[in-house]
Amino acid sequence: MAYLNDNFLKLKAGYLFPEIGRRVQAFCDANPEAAQRLIRCGIGDVTEPLPFAVVSALHKAVDEMAVRETFKGYGPEQGYAWLRAAIAKNDFRDRGMDIADDEIFVSDGSKCDCGAILDILGAKNKIAISDPVYPVYVDTNVMAGHTGEANAAGTYAKLVYLPCKPSNNFIPAPPKKPVDVIYLCSPNNPTGAAATREQLEAWVKYALEHKSVILFDAAYEAYITEPALPHSIYEIPGARECAIEFRSFSKNGGFTGTRCAFTVVPKSLKLATKTGELQPLHPLWNRRMTTKFNGVSYIIQRAAEALYSAEGKAQVQALIQHYLGNADVLRQGAKQAGLKVFGGVNAPYIWVRTPKGVTSWQAFDKILNDANVVITPGSGFGSKGEGFFRISAFNSRTNAEEVARRLQALKW
Amino acid sequence: MAYLNDNFLKLKAGYLFPEIGRRVQAFCDANPEAAQRLIRCGIGDVTEPLPFAVVSALHKAVDEMAVRETFKGYGPEQGYAWLRAAIAKNDFRDRGMDIADDEIFVSDGSKCDCGAILDILGAKNKIAISDPVYPVYVDTNVMAGHTGEANAAGTYAKLVYLPCKPSNNFIPAPPKKPVDVIYLCSPNNPTGAAATREQLEAWVKYALEHKSVILFDAAYEAYITEPALPHSIYEIPGARECAIEFRSFSKNGGFTGTRCAFTVVPKSLKLATKTGELQPLHPLWNRRMTTKFNGVSYIIQRAAEALYSAEGKAQVQALIQHYLGNADVLRQGAKQAGLKVFGGVNAPYIWVRTPKGVTSWQAFDKILNDANVVITPGSGFGSKGEGFFRISAFNSRTNAEEVARRLQALKW
Repeated sequence: MAYLNDNFLKLKAGYLFPEIGRRVQAFCDANPEAAQRLIRCGIGDVTEPLPFAVVSALHKAVDEMAVRETFKGYGPEQGYAWLRAAIAKNDFRDRGMDIADDEIFVSDGSKCDCGAILDILGAKNKIAISDPVYPVYVDTNVMAGHTGEANAAGTYAKLVYLPCKPSNNFIPAPPKKPVDVIYLCSPNNPTGAAATREQLEAWVKYALEHKSVILFDAAYEAYITEPALPHSIYEIPGARECAIEFRSFSKNGGFTGTRCAFTVVPKSLKLATKTGELQPLHPLWNRRMTTKFNGVSYIIQRAAEALYSAEGKAQVQALIQHYLGNADVLRQGAKQAGLKVFGGVNAPYIWVRTPKGVTSWQAFDKILNDANVVITPGSGFGSKGEGFFRISAFNSRTNAEEVARRLQALKW
Repeated sequence: MAYLNDNFLKLKAGYLFPEIGRRVQAFCDANPEAAQRLIRCGIGDVTEPLPFAVVSALHKAVDEMAVRETFKGYGPEQGYAWLRAAIAKNDFRDRGMDIADDEIFVSDGSKCDCGAILDILGAKNKIAISDPVYPVYVDTNVMAGHTGEANAAGTYAKLVYLPCKPSNNFIPAPPKKPVDVIYLCSPNNPTGAAATREQLEAWVKYALEHKSVILFDAAYEAYITEPALPHSIYEIPGARECAIEFRSFSKNGGFTGTRCAFTVVPKSLKLATKTGELQPLHPLWNRRMTTKFNGVSYIIQRAAEALYSAEGKAQVQALIQHYLGNADVLRQGAKQAGLKVFGGVNAPYIWVRTPKGVTSWQAFDKILNDANVVITPGSGFGSKGEGFFRISAFNSRTNAEEVARRLQALKW
């Protein structure tokens, strides 16, 4: 008799964004007129078209695929050498970090990589995650059997939750007890907070001391505006020995519907076998990628490469400035509405405290019904997200301004 | 202390194709002149450009991504509704099979899906695979901890191997003992054999009786030429209750470098929980895809859709006929060289017995050195592949003809 993976049955309700989608759909079906003025600031999805440099590169690559002499079949599963080189040089070596081309693994998404990375980690690791947190970190660990059951608040047994709150500026300090695998996301989704150099130094020190591994999600690094803040964990000495970094073209190049990302696995990062012998993780990830993945579409890799051209870089900067401008409009709007706001300076997300006595989902429903704006309820990111909601700055300026106005008009 | 997944350390050498790549590279470095006349019939990778209908659809989709009004961000993780509908209608319902649109899950590759499917299956299932077999089925089970150690021949403890040999026409019959998860690939990679209706009926009967699940890989169904042979497991009554099917656009549309595939998970397929209660697998796969995947690039999905247009279908047929024509040339060439050949009629692969006393890797090295042709050693597909090699028909006609000539000139 074939068995299914029972760990899936521990998962609470739907994954957050499909659940939001369901509620929004129900609202639109019931209120076709209000649906016309709906503005979506829920899921962090870009709205502006692909940069022109990318569009040109895509057309060129499509034409190559149309001719036998330049047609491309299977590429290297880890990504084409020219893309790995462009990434390692531009994002790391030109910024003083020691990352080799073959430590870059090109993929179709950070969400995919965040789940896939568990394939190469042992089953007995103690997992630490922030609370609130990007739900994918939690749910993939539930699926892999690394947790116990969830309680009513959606908190899973066996996971170590690191509370993120105004008092620690939403960046947790290392815990007193030892943990083996640590998820850090900076700039943070959902809180919009960005870790300082000192905070990351404390984590790297902790990881080296405890022989832990840090899974560092830097999908939003392009949004950092304060010059002193690190863009990569590898800016911290020692990180090559204890950290994997996830990067994405989704939020800088606007690739959410185009799909390209990469993961950095340094060759100097070693983890223990069952018998306690330290072995490099790089060959395991390489083997995982060659066996369970077939590389990103050639056409799409050429698109990603174009982001590193001079025009591409300038066009990405313009996109980032556009979304950060929205973030500022939304921050000011929410403030003027009398709400307490966080984030939105080094990240495209505003993290807003709900009015007293209002839960996150109550705020979601109220803002959907009365302002016809979709936000994300903070409790969807974890129990410590209760009492907050997230506004995404991914939108047109007109919409951002309109959302700011509607928030101010809202009577709680 | 963080631990790695020790199961990876059980894996033998490299994944087959990277290992072939390494040997070919070494040969080319040492013999730059011979390298000039090298013909690759190793990895099953298409050589002809994308169909014109696909190229047009790609350009159109790129242009949509360049304009705010038609730009696409995140799509549904399961694939766009229009693509799922085109697949379900054309590949299944129009051929008399009862498959709903939302039973189709679009992905970036069958290799990925073959690995990912293990996420939703239990850890204690007894796994049956053909021998020889596509190495991904074995290696992903090793990584997931479903096997013991390998012996010197590369045979893993705990896996149930089903020998495929000339005497059973390379299609195994169901085993006497119960197995829970059964991998079947028809038309077969590597042997080129295709299962008859009776053979698949026997497997579906077995699976229903034993409450097993069949993982049916139909990546090569477009190459079936004999009208009586099933193209899908769902042509067999009862398969909706016991089978998952993997399909790919790699070998029909020439998408190996473009990346799009799909998996069919019928809603009527139920597997047991630990306590023996039957539950549908469809919600688990849906949850897996929404949590660990972010959908295929919009541009690429439009390319896949174009394969179902009238022009697309005709252009795919022309591609298939081209490769099948090569297969015929190679079959005849190998036969005339005095070799015993199988396959190549309903599949783009010729399965050739090595001359007496010659191992698969010896044949590989000999053919590489003396004929400057890359084939795939049969032993790379499992111990029962020893004494065979695979010739891929994915090539230009000129190359196929030249390979046929060189095989005949070869002195063993």
